[in-house]
Amino acid sequence: MSIAPAQVELICIGNELLIGKTLNTNAHWLAKRITTLGLLVRRITVVGDDVDEIASAIKESIQRKPVFIITTGGLGPTFDDKTLEGVAKAVGQELKENREALEMIKKKYRQYQAEGRIEKFEMTQYRVKMARLPEGAKPLPNPVGTAPGVLLKWGDVNLVMLPGVPQEMMAIFEKSVVPLLREVAGNLTFYEASLKIRGIAESDLAPIIDHVMHRNPYVYIKSHPKMSEKTHRIELHLSTTSDSQSIAKQRIERAIIEISELIREKGGRIQPVQT
Amino acid sequence: MSIAPAQVELICIGNELLIGKTLNTNAHWLAKRITTLGLLVRRITVVGDDVDEIASAIKESIQRKPVFIITTGGLGPTFDDKTLEGVAKAVGQELKENREALEMIKKKYRQYQAEGRIEKFEMTQYRVKMARLPEGAKPLPNPVGTAPGVLLKWGDVNLVMLPGVPQEMMAIFEKSVVPLLREVAGNLTFYEASLKIRGIAESDLAPIIDHVMHRNPYVYIKSHPKMSEKTHRIELHLSTTSDSQSIAKQRIERAIIEISELIREKGGRIQPVQT
Repeated sequence: MSIAPAQVELICIGNELLIGKTLNTNAHWLAKRITTLGLLVRRITVVGDDVDEIASAIKESIQRKPVFIITTGGLGPTFDDKTLEGVAKAVGQELKENREALEMIKKKYRQYQAEGRIEKFEMTQYRVKMARLPEGAKPLPNPVGTAPGVLLKWGDVNLVMLPGVPQEMMAIFEKSVVPLLREVAGNLTFYEASLKIRGIAESDLAPIIDHVMHRNPYVYIKSHPKMSEKTHRIELHLSTTSDSQSIAKQRIERAIIEISELIREKGGRIQPVQT
Repeated sequence: MSIAPAQVELICIGNELLIGKTLNTNAHWLAKRITTLGLLVRRITVVGDDVDEIASAIKESIQRKPVFIITTGGLGPTFDDKTLEGVAKAVGQELKENREALEMIKKKYRQYQAEGRIEKFEMTQYRVKMARLPEGAKPLPNPVGTAPGVLLKWGDVNLVMLPGVPQEMMAIFEKSVVPLLREVAGNLTFYEASLKIRGIAESDLAPIIDHVMHRNPYVYIKSHPKMSEKTHRIELHLSTTSDSQSIAKQRIERAIIEISELIREKGGRIQPVQT
């Protein structure tokens, strides 16, 4: 039986992503992690440090009704950190000083002062800014940096705002977001395998993929052509989602046996890929 | 004088991006290249191999009226290559065999046969598929691979569809898309510089950035905190867009002098970054 996985959308915020300064490794890491947890990333949106752009992206995403919207970036103390303002605008809320968040941040700066990293402990407007959350939101502790993550339940959608610094994003995700995702994922498992194929053109592989996918309706097979000087080289990626790890594995193994036979008949050579 | 750069949106298509199998280096490369050419990437959207998802993303993008929408991925011969079907659906067109595209593809397979890379020259439905374009579209020659890129002018929007294989995407972009972008970009130049800052917290840098940006209204200054074990380390990125390379350079240099002085006053240390 095939079960539809719960949907997640990612919204990555930051001009650095739109000018090609920063490679979006956050989206890549989150997509892999969320898929492995048995949920489906439906869309990834990247917008700049602009309240209206952020608010539009969030509103549009809410309309598609994913179970989770996870944003990265824009939670810090500087003027261009506008994520929470964008979220508040999208849901028609105000930003308010959140006592729990303020305590978390104060604790950090007291610690920084004790370590000699800042001169004086003083809650400037820039530091307090990180504690101004949309009403009803909950701060998520940041084990690595200063700005807390933020969770806001909005109707049936869970909005999760994470910082853009990868180590902070990953730490908050693992500690506070994974347990929430596991709750909605149930027992679903994503299972995948790859084969390296040589000596057959992708257009000749196409009818073979059609045939094997028709016979293995729960397995998704996608060909990824790789450039090399002389020979065709294609990576074949097989994946499935199931509530049973052993069924998932069986499905993939069966599809691999079938597709390998047909590829060899056409003169192709096959090599499994360690993942 | 500040001039608003022409807007571009990127739509990257492929399940591999949503399951975290593939890092989206295509979006990164295109964003950097387009920014350098003096245009503005407003949004990047990633969707899966699904006609409705592709069509929705394109329709939504058209409504935001960018000058260019550039898609990557989904032009190949397999069942999951659905980009042109999605584009056709978005603009309410049919896919039709395009004679020019068909000739390009035939020429490729004749060459592959001559090189012994395919057994027989035969225009199977899978090979013809790559020549089925929305009506009114123009194929863009692929100097590296098989599937041509596609250009479709739709009202005031130029839709450009590029393959997902990076070498093919880049080759078509450089040959056929750069000249089109240069036409709308005019003489605009994007100029940027980075500084490495140590010994000052981002929250203490925030008022300095506010002050310097207020005095340098055409310069955008963004702080990127980097994780390190003990010390604060922040990359400060300054950028501007101008129709004069020398004005752009002057603006950035002036802002660097001003911000450096203020950072040193607060005990921060500065190092320029080679880019």
